[in-house]
Order: sequence, then C-alpha cells, then structure tokens
Amino acid sequence: MLPGGALNLVELQEAARERLPAITYDYYASGAHDEHTLRENEAAWARVHLHYRVLVDVSARDLSTTVLGTRVSMPILVAPTAFHRLACPDGELATARAASRARTVMCLSSLSNTGVEDVCAVSGGPVWFQLYVYRDRAATEALVARAEAAGASALVLTVDAPLLGRRERDVRNRFHLPDGLRVENLTAAGHGDVALRSGESGLAAYFAEKLDPSLTWKDVAWLRSVTRVPLLVKGIVRPDDARRAIDHGASGVVVSNHGGRQLDGSPATAAVLAPIANAVQGRIEVLIDGGVRRGTDVLKALSLGARAVLIGRPILWGLAVAGEDGALAVLETLRHELDHAMALAGCARVSDATHDLVSSA
Amino acid sequence: MLPGGALNLVELQEAARERLPAITYDYYASGAHDEHTLRENEAAWARVHLHYRVLVDVSARDLSTTVLGTRVSMPILVAPTAFHRLACPDGELATARAASRARTVMCLSSLSNTGVEDVCAVSGGPVWFQLYVYRDRAATEALVARAEAAGASALVLTVDAPLLGRRERDVRNRFHLPDGLRVENLTAAGHGDVALRSGESGLAAYFAEKLDPSLTWKDVAWLRSVTRVPLLVKGIVRPDDARRAIDHGASGVVVSNHGGRQLDGSPATAAVLAPIANAVQGRIEVLIDGGVRRGTDVLKALSLGARAVLIGRPILWGLAVAGEDGALAVLETLRHELDHAMALAGCARVSDATHDLVSSA
Amino acid sequence: MLPGGALNLVELQEAARERLPAITYDYYASGAHDEHTLRENEAAWARVHLHYRVLVDVSARDLSTTVLGTRVSMPILVAPTAFHRLACPDGELATARAASRARTVMCLSSLSNTGVEDVCAVSGGPVWFQLYVYRDRAATEALVARAEAAGASALVLTVDAPLLGRRERDVRNRFHLPDGLRVENLTAAGHGDVALRSGESGLAAYFAEKLDPSLTWKDVAWLRSVTRVPLLVKGIVRPDDARRAIDHGASGVVVSNHGGRQLDGSPATAAVLAPIANAVQGRIEVLIDGGVRRGTDVLKALSLGARAVLIGRPILWGLAVAGEDGALAVLETLRHELDHAMALAGCARVSDATHDLVSSA
Amino acid sequence: MLPGGALNLVELQEAARERLPAITYDYYASGAHDEHTLRENEAAWARVHLHYRVLVDVSARDLSTTVLGTRVSMPILVAPTAFHRLACPDGELATARAASRARTVMCLSSLSNTGVEDVCAVSGGPVWFQLYVYRDRAATEALVARAEAAGASALVLTVDAPLLGRRERDVRNRFHLPDGLRVENLTAAGHGDVALRSGESGLAAYFAEKLDPSLTWKDVAWLRSVTRVPLLVKGIVRPDDARRAIDHGASGVVVSNHGGRQLDGSPATAAVLAPIANAVQGRIEVLIDGGVRRGTDVLKALSLGARAVLIGRPILWGLAVAGEDGALAVLETLRHELDHAMALAGCARVSDATHDLVSSA
Repeated sequence: MLPGGALNLVELQEAARERLPAITYDYYASGAHDEHTLRENEAAWARVHLHYRVLVDVSARDLSTTVLGTRVSMPILVAPTAFHRLACPDGELATARAASRARTVMCLSSLSNTGVEDVCAVSGGPVWFQLYVYRDRAATEALVARAEAAGASALVLTVDAPLLGRRERDVRNRFHLPDGLRVENLTAAGHGDVALRSGESGLAAYFAEKLDPSLTWKDVAWLRSVTRVPLLVKGIVRPDDARRAIDHGASGVVVSNHGGRQLDGSPATAAVLAPIANAVQGRIEVLIDGGVRRGTDVLKALSLGARAVLIGRPILWGLAVAGEDGALAVLETLRHELDHAMALAGCARVSDATHDLVSSA
Repeated sequence: MLPGGALNLVELQEAARERLPAITYDYYASGAHDEHTLRENEAAWARVHLHYRVLVDVSARDLSTTVLGTRVSMPILVAPTAFHRLACPDGELATARAASRARTVMCLSSLSNTGVEDVCAVSGGPVWFQLYVYRDRAATEALVARAEAAGASALVLTVDAPLLGRRERDVRNRFHLPDGLRVENLTAAGHGDVALRSGESGLAAYFAEKLDPSLTWKDVAWLRSVTRVPLLVKGIVRPDDARRAIDHGASGVVVSNHGGRQLDGSPATAAVLAPIANAVQGRIEVLIDGGVRRGTDVLKALSLGARAVLIGRPILWGLAVAGEDGALAVLETLRHELDHAMALAGCARVSDATHDLVSSA
Repeated sequence: MLPGGALNLVELQEAARERLPAITYDYYASGAHDEHTLRENEAAWARVHLHYRVLVDVSARDLSTTVLGTRVSMPILVAPTAFHRLACPDGELATARAASRARTVMCLSSLSNTGVEDVCAVSGGPVWFQLYVYRDRAATEALVARAEAAGASALVLTVDAPLLGRRERDVRNRFHLPDGLRVENLTAAGHGDVALRSGESGLAAYFAEKLDPSLTWKDVAWLRSVTRVPLLVKGIVRPDDARRAIDHGASGVVVSNHGGRQLDGSPATAAVLAPIANAVQGRIEVLIDGGVRRGTDVLKALSLGARAVLIGRPILWGLAVAGEDGALAVLETLRHELDHAMALAGCARVSDATHDLVSSA
Repeated sequence: MLPGGALNLVELQEAARERLPAITYDYYASGAHDEHTLRENEAAWARVHLHYRVLVDVSARDLSTTVLGTRVSMPILVAPTAFHRLACPDGELATARAASRARTVMCLSSLSNTGVEDVCAVSGGPVWFQLYVYRDRAATEALVARAEAAGASALVLTVDAPLLGRRERDVRNRFHLPDGLRVENLTAAGHGDVALRSGESGLAAYFAEKLDPSLTWKDVAWLRSVTRVPLLVKGIVRPDDARRAIDHGASGVVVSNHGGRQLDGSPATAAVLAPIANAVQGRIEVLIDGGVRRGTDVLKALSLGARAVLIGRPILWGLAVAGEDGALAVLETLRHELDHAMALAGCARVSDATHDLVSSA
C-alpha cells in the first residue's frame, strides 16, 4: 500500500531519508537538544499493552467519529507541520487533497509554503488552521480572519513555543528556506521570510523576532473573541493546563510536546494522556500527537482517553516519497492498521476502546 | 539429546534456520508487525524468578498430571501450529507419533497438511483438534464431526484471530503453500487452498475470505451443542474473558496471544497468567503457550497457575532438523529440563509448584 | 557559542579529549572504580521529566538569584575542581576571569595550581574557597586565614573524602603533577607536592598522608570558630547529614558525590536532592553538583529544591579548548540553555521552578 | 597489588582466562543453562546504592569480626569451590595458605583435589569443611569424622544440589578431571573419580550417581547428631527455609544460589538477603555468596544483614594467575577495597554497616 517498497511507516521514513536533502530530512526528523523526548514519544507507546477482548462481533467495523462536531472517517487527522514544499513540489496542496480523499481533517500549519485560501480551495474536506500569536497582533488578527474567510473550521493555537526549541541538527545545517519558498500566510504581513542566519537556525531567529513570548491565558480569551470557529489549544502536558483551557473557552486540547522539538525532557505524550483525559472528564475533546507510527498506537491513544490522534512526520515522509499519493497512503495504512487492530482487540466502534483495554509496563 | 548438535531449544532454532527455506523459516518464526509481543513472550519468563525450596525429598519425581481428565506423562503438550509438511515430509504424522511416544497430547491444527483421520490413526495417544469457525458453518460443523469421528478427544477453539495478524515477513515473502500442500482438513469443503497472492500473505487472504469475524460467545455455546468432547477456548489474555469462558461451558482456556502473531502490543502471556488463574479459581483448567523454551519456564508457568503448557515453534524446529525424532527430542528435552528444575526447586510433584515459588521483577 | 565547533557540552568534552594528554583527560574525566556513579549522575537527570506550563508570560526572564546572600546572574556556579593549569597555561586565573565575566561565583579548589590571593586578585566577582581539613591543623587554619584575607566570601568544606576515591585510570596512568605544577595554596605549609608514586595515583598518596580521616561534625564547629565567612558542607547525600549540617552551623550544603570520584555505588545526586531539600525545609541553602550538562538539568535541579548548581568538568573542557573564553562559553551556554528551558517551561523567574514541574520515571 | 597487571577482580578474571585451558576456565566461569542467574548475581549488587555518611571519625578502622564465634580479620571468607589443582599445581594447599595469611576462614570443598588433613595441616587458621550427603551414608559419616579429626571447625552443608545444575559449557566440553586428579576426600570411600562421560558433564554424572536427592531437613538433624562442630546450611534463598534452618539446629545459613550454577532463574542473592536477614532476626548468622567482586559489594552485603561474604571464583582466578600469592592478592584487594569503602561510607567498624546505608533501585 505504501510507496517506496515500504511495509510500514518506519520503512517509509527510511525511504524518505534516501530521497530528501539532508537539511530537509534533518529539519523534519530532528528533536530538541539530546532528542530524549523525540525518542520517548515513540518508546512510550511500546510500553502500553493491549489487553484485547475476544469473541466480540467485529465483522462490521466503524472507524468514523466526530472531532469538534465534524464527522471524519477515522480518528486519525493530519497534524500541522511546516513547509511541505520542502518535501514535494505541490506541498500543502498535495497534503490537503490527500486528507480530503481520506475524509479526515487537514490541520494546516500557519508556517506553510502555501496560503490558506489555496489549501482550502483544493480541499473537499474540513481544514483546521494552526497558528501562533505574533508580536504583531494586527497581523495575527488578520491571519485569523483570512483563515476563517478561506473556510478553516477550527483554530489550533500552539502554546508550547514561546521560543523555538533548539534543534541542533538545524543549527549545524544552518536551516533556512531555499529561494522561492516562504511562509505564505505571513508574506502579506511582512513576516514571510525564514532567512539564512550565521551560526544558527533561521527558523529559531524567525521565532525570536516575530512570535510573542508574553502570551498568557488571557490571550486565549482574546483569540476566542476575534473568531467564530472553535479553538483547540495545542501543546498541553499537564492536567491543570487542560483545566485552564476549559476555563478559557477552548473546545479542546491537543496533548503534544511538539514532536519532541521544543523542551527536551518533556514527558512522552502517551505518558500524560490518561491523567489529562481524567482531569478533563469529557467536558472538552482531548486529541494527541507524538510518536504515533502504528494503528495499534492509535488504538492505545483512544483507550487512554483521546478523541483522535494527529499524524505529523509520517505525512512528510509520504509526501517526500510519492507526493499526494504518498500522504494518502500513510493515512490509508494507518486506517487499515487501526481497523485491523480494532478487529483483533474486539472493538467494533472507536467508542469500544475503553481504558480497561490498556495497561502500562 | 537434541539433533543438529544443539544443547537447547535456542540452538535448535538456529539449526532449523540453516535447514529451512527462508519463506518457511520466516512463516514459522515471525510475529505480527514490530514483533514486540513475540519478543516479550520470551523475555517475560526471564523476569520471573524461582525461589526454590531446599531439603525436600525429590528422589522420586512424578511429572505426570491430567489435562481435561486425560492423563499425560508431563504438563507439556504439543501446541497447534499450521503446515508441518513445510518442515518435513511426514508433517503432522511425524508430530503425532512424537507426541504419542512422549505420552502427551498432540493438539492438531485445523490448518494441517494432513487430515485429522490420518493423524489420529498413527497416534497412540490423545489428539485434540484446534479449529476456527468458518463463515461456512456447515463446513465448520462437518469439521467438528470429522474430528470427533476420527477420535479427537477435545476441541480447541482459537478466538484471537477474527482476522489474521499481519506478519510483515510473510507479506514481503508473499507466503503461500507450495504446490501439493493444502489445508487437508478443509479440502473436502472447498477451503483447502492457501494460494499465492499479489503483494500480501496468502494466508492472510485465506483468513479474510473464509473465517468468521462475527463470532461471539454465543457461538461458543453453539459449538458446545454440536460436540460431545470438551472445549478449550484459546487466545485469552483477560480475566473477564476467562470468566466468560466458564459461563459459556468451556472446560478450560489457553492463555495465549497466538505466539505474538496476531495483535502486536498484546501483553506477554507470562504477565497475564496469574491474574487469569486467580479469576478462574480452579473452576476450569488454565493452559498457556507463548515463549516457553526451557523447563524452568514450564515450572514458572505451573507456579503461576497453569495446568500445563503448550509448545509451538520448538516442535517445528525439531521436525525441520530431524523429523519425528526431532519433535520427540524437543519434548524429551523439555521433560528432562522440567524434571531437573523440579528437583532443584524442591518439587516432587507438579502440584508442588505453588505461587510462593515465583516472584516477578 | 562554544569553541571547537561544539554545539553542546558533550561535544565540547570530545573536543577537549582530542586536545589533552591522556593522563590529564583521564584525571578529569574518570570516576572511582567501575564508574557506576559517574554514569548514574548524568543518567539520573534524563529520568527526570519536565512537565512544562504553557501560556505564562515569559517575555522578561530573570535568571538572577542569590546564593548565601550574594547576588549572582544565574543559579549556575563554578564548582571546585583541582589543577586547572593542566588544562591551560593560565589555569585558575582563566577560570576566575570567566566566572567574573559571567557574574557568578567561582569556587576555587584548595588543590589549585594558583594561590587564592592571585585568583581573588584577578576576579571581579565573588570567590568561594573549597578546602579539606589537613592532619596539620595549623596549616589548615592558616589556609582559612589566607583565603579570608584574600577575599574569599565563603568556605566550602568537602566532607566526602576522608581518603581519595580510587580512580583506576589514574592508578594505571600513575597520575602526578608535572614538573612546575604544585598545590600552590599548600606550598608554604610544605604540602604542595603531588609526586609520582610507584604503582598508584600520586594524588591518592597525597590524601592518605596529609588529610585527616578523623574529621567529625565537631570539627565543623571548630572551622566555624576560626572564620567569619559562611560555611558550606559539600558531599552530602543523606537527609540526616543535611540536618546535622544545620545543627553545626553550616549555611548550606552541597548535594554531591564528588562527581562519582569517591565512593562508587553512591546514589546519583539527582536521586537524593528532593529528600534532602525536603528535610532541610529552607532553613539553609541546598546546592548540587553532579552530571549537570544541559540547561534543562539546571531547571530540573531547581525544581527538585536546589538553590543553584555547580558545574565541574565542563569548565575544564572549556579551559582545555579555549582557556578563559572557553570556560566563559560553558557558563554562557548553560545560561542560554537555562533561559531557553525556563521560557519553554513557563518560568519567568527561578523561583517559578517548583516541584510540580518535575516527575521521575 | 593483583598479579597479571590487573587493577581489579574483573581484570584478573580476564588474565586467568588467558592462562587457563578452556575446559577449566569454562568449568569455573560457567553457570547453569542460559546463565541468567550468573549474570544477575553480579548485576544485582550494582542496583544497591550506598548512602554514605560523612564526618564520622574513620581514622582507625576495624574490619575484624567473628563468624560462628571465630575471629577473622575481615568479613570476607574463602567460599568452597571444587578442584583447585585445575588452577595451579598446589591447588587447595595454596588456597589454605593464602586464607591463613589473610587471617580468615578457608572453607574447603569436599570436592577438592587435596585431602582435608593436608589442607588443615598447612593452614594456620580456621578451616571449614563443605560437604554433600552421599547416598552412601557411611561414607558421608566417615567424611564428617575425617574432617573433624583433621581440625575443621565447622561443617557447611550444601543443600541446593540434589542434582548438579546443567552447565552447558561443561556438557559441550565433556568436562572431567584429567588423569591424576581426583576427589581426594572421597577416594578412600570409592567415590573419588570424576570420569569422562560420553555427551555430558562427568561431574553431573557423578552427582546423579552418588549424591542423595532424598535429603530433607531431618537429615540436617542427623548430621547435627554425628558432629561436634557448628553446622551451616548453604544454598538458602527463602526466608521460610532460613527459619527451618534455625529449627533444625543450624548455626547459620549461607544465602547462595551456588554461583548461578544450579537452578537458572533463581533470584540474585543480593535480592533475597534482606528478607532472609529480617526473618532470622539475628538468631543465627547469615552469610552470603554470589557475584561479590568489589569491596563495595561486601559493604552492601553487610548493610543488608550479612555477617560475612564468601568469595568463590575470584580466588580461582588468583590461583590461576599466581598460585598462593594470587589467591592472597584477591583477599587483600577485597580487604583494601572494603576498608576504603568503609572509610568513604563513614563506617569505622563492620557493625556500622546498617540497613539505612543502602537503598535498591
């Protein structure tokens, strides 16, 4: 099903590594500092065991669910990741078409190489828009307005990045966008360039200059006030912060440590999901990303209390190896693996993935 | 005692690997997906420690026991595994003769290359018959009737396989049965062929087409109604499912995750045996398979509450290296090792293997 | 920021290893016996996870704090380590200038190749003086007087070394000071030479001959009586010893196992910090050293209850690669990493690093 | 201090491996089956941490203690191990002289290549005699009488070997005693030969033929009745068995799993020492062997409740590399390391090694 002769997403990553320039592969693959959290995100899923049920009628399986009231064909969404045109010429357009064909949500990064209007235009399905709050609040508000006007049906505010995490591979590679690629959504506001910097990552410099590290929960209320669409707060690892998200009008949280790219030493998302889901008690939706590479990981996340998972890097590997079809193959592989895992675990519906299905070692 | 210069079952596996075609070795050896559960099954036994007793008279040791009322010379049975003619020309006939010579139970897989009548005919001892429930219930019922008529003294219903687990080595090898080999027990019913499939495992396709994923506990009652012999439910990893087996008339359960070949991420069987044995409280018999490679593993299983263990892959390695004599050597090696372990642990009888003998680290 | 092309302190160590004679590198790098504690010191930080807070205003971060009433620009101090002239010609003078430029405390080892007067003279900032108690108490008292007269503003009594730990690399290398280098602070008292010894470490012989293994808490009171400056007791791993330090007039303790160079098998300092901080209840200050290599390690230490951390070996690697500028670069790198970690963890001030920020796995 | 250029006992083992024939090295070094317990014995000590005390007067350290009322210069004894003439020509005579020079107990194995009379004759210190109970009780009783007459001051009954553990290296090597070497203590009774056997270890065959696997606690009482000297029961891993030893008149127990050579999967001795010491409550003495390779291991054992430790394999490596002087060097190295560890841990006497000094991770 996957391109590049890959049987699974780990093999697909290897195929992508062979095709991509090192500067791009490293940008996508790397984590902050010693990459402890990067590795832990994947390792933590392996420590969760699936105590499957037998003799449940799983002949008709239904993977569909809703996220923020939107029906999706499966609890697997496209996570916001930056700069898809580094992976393939069509960039985010390819991703959006793939998500749409898979009947799931595309969450577009504000740091895309394609404007949100173009992405929404090619997508036949729901598009969410991820954003940061810029020091330039006017630009931020304009960005929200543009995203809404384009048709984005939810905002995803990333809150784990008052500064950019230090990814040493990018520092060494002096990561920057090649000529011709920009942050399209911010170009009009004059924040489009991620330039080459001496002795550091250009993206880190971009963050330090432009993003607002003074952001607080009050700004979440402000953001709520300038948009009509639901708001997700992404980057939560603490139950108390999840409760604050409820208090400030969020419709959901994404349990995330930014794929291990921000604070190295953060706990694996799989390790904090259950306490957060328990704190939230269903009042808002809890999504998760981080290290999900198998359908069994998705089933574990659902059992630990997630409404859905977001898939980041594997989409990029799919784009790198086969463009839109590659991204779609990633989604369909995970769908197939989740379907398979649900059958073997005695789950006919995603709501059958309850906490008793899992234990942690 | 073992053929191929092997001193233990791990060395025997290596000897078999050298002799078998890769497609066959991989089919026998592999587990699902990332093979976490495959490895965990073996590793979990090593985390159980034997707190041996001293100064017990172990001069006369009795390894015999009963399983489902049948006396066996030791609590070590032959697990159902498919396609023995891939390992040696005599296939399941060799296995049955070996089990009979070892005075233990041969549990014949329904996916054998030899019909149950022929297997029972050459066996001088008890034969159990493992089966799946086919979409074609008439064929299933006919199969049960054949097995009973042939002399099978128990049915073993495998319940962890509504679909076949994805074993990526088999996908890569495009596993299928070579010309001349079929699922003999199903040939009459038209379900005998495991054909070459493009881009996948032929056995996975066979399962998807023919087996019934709608099976529930009610079907266990149905199966009870069409047979006179005792029924074991194989593939249990949860205490509540073990209790359901009691409620639906099973005579026993086999704690099993199908040798790590079905749902990767399932717990090691050694890790769930004690809670299941505790839930069952002796009302039915609890057997176990998965990763048993030493007599000390058998002793640990007995101490954790198992009535007996079933041996899968090592039998195949014995067949591959030396046919019937090889399979017998596997059983006799385990007998010898168990006898030895019992002597050193202060157990004169298998009933002396009580829970205080073990701790887990 | 770091010299030698290093992006972090681990890479800097490698650069230093390439530049230093093996006898010096081994002396600096090695731990006692099997180096279990040496490795554990670093590994233990990795087992502490940072449960960062989001949406805290971290636009203005203040890393400054006080230690023993002295304001420092950050909670990162220079630990006392011996023989800096093995690393670079300026030795401790380079280190003192670096600490001063970083506006933090230089803790000078009594086993320095430079006299305390010279060190204090070049330093524009606070200098603490580490010492051992010699069998020759007159020499000890004179040493205290000299240090005070020179301007040292605190004494740091090392209590984990009644004998020198056996560092087998030094035994094999027959570690000794090369011609021209002495223990300058003790030369006047006739204790300046660390000579070549047959079949052992010269420093171990020095300790056995000169230092007093009969030292008890009463001697702490004596030391308190002969000095006007505050006293820190360094080498504590037990809560009860920390309480004894309070009872005997210490102003603080340093949780330390001497960088794994004394008793191999000692617990990692990260593992005992929280119980010690809890026992002390803020009555005196608790500092820590051992395995701190990242700003996140510093943040973990603060969260576990430390007032500040002391940095040992990395300073030596900085000296070895680039002298004073190298040592300064180590301090500035850690400052930058701590600042970054605080921003990402939602800490605007060091007092925001509270216990709920960390968990241990 | 050690011969062969070794700085510690691990390096000494390597030096011995280079000098010994493989059949001998393997016999000494190997453990049963997969050697899990062999490795665990050493690994378990590393998981015990030493929470050292500071500012204790350790200027005068006293390592002496008593075992079974006999004063020894340190709590480190020579464990009974078989066949010392495989290591050096003087065999057990060399060992006895070394133990005597170290002023500690030599525990002579009944499976020695030298008669107990000769060993006692050369020894200036206490000799204990280890024995098994033979099927031939007359020979056993004669052996006890001989040992007592020769001057052995205690008997050490090994109870973990109703059969010999299967050491696969010995099976592969067809271990046997070379011409000219016999079990001298049993030669008179006709049990002196450990012959070459086809396809197995000669020693395993010897055990199966000659030793009595029907031994029970009643036989301990019998043994008590035929001797005047104190009796130690060696091979205990359970608190209840330690209490039975008290009830049957033993003066002490040795917590031991026979160096991992009997039942593989037994717990590490370090892991069961504390519960056994706690069960015994000082009514009899608790000794321990297994994996002790450092003075810190000895200190850990004392802190966990042991009266003394017995050293097995390292003595053999000393003999192999330098005969009597080599064995002595092993004892003196451990003495020096223990002395050093006590100084660094704040223990002036062995009785200062109390339970609060250790924690296990």
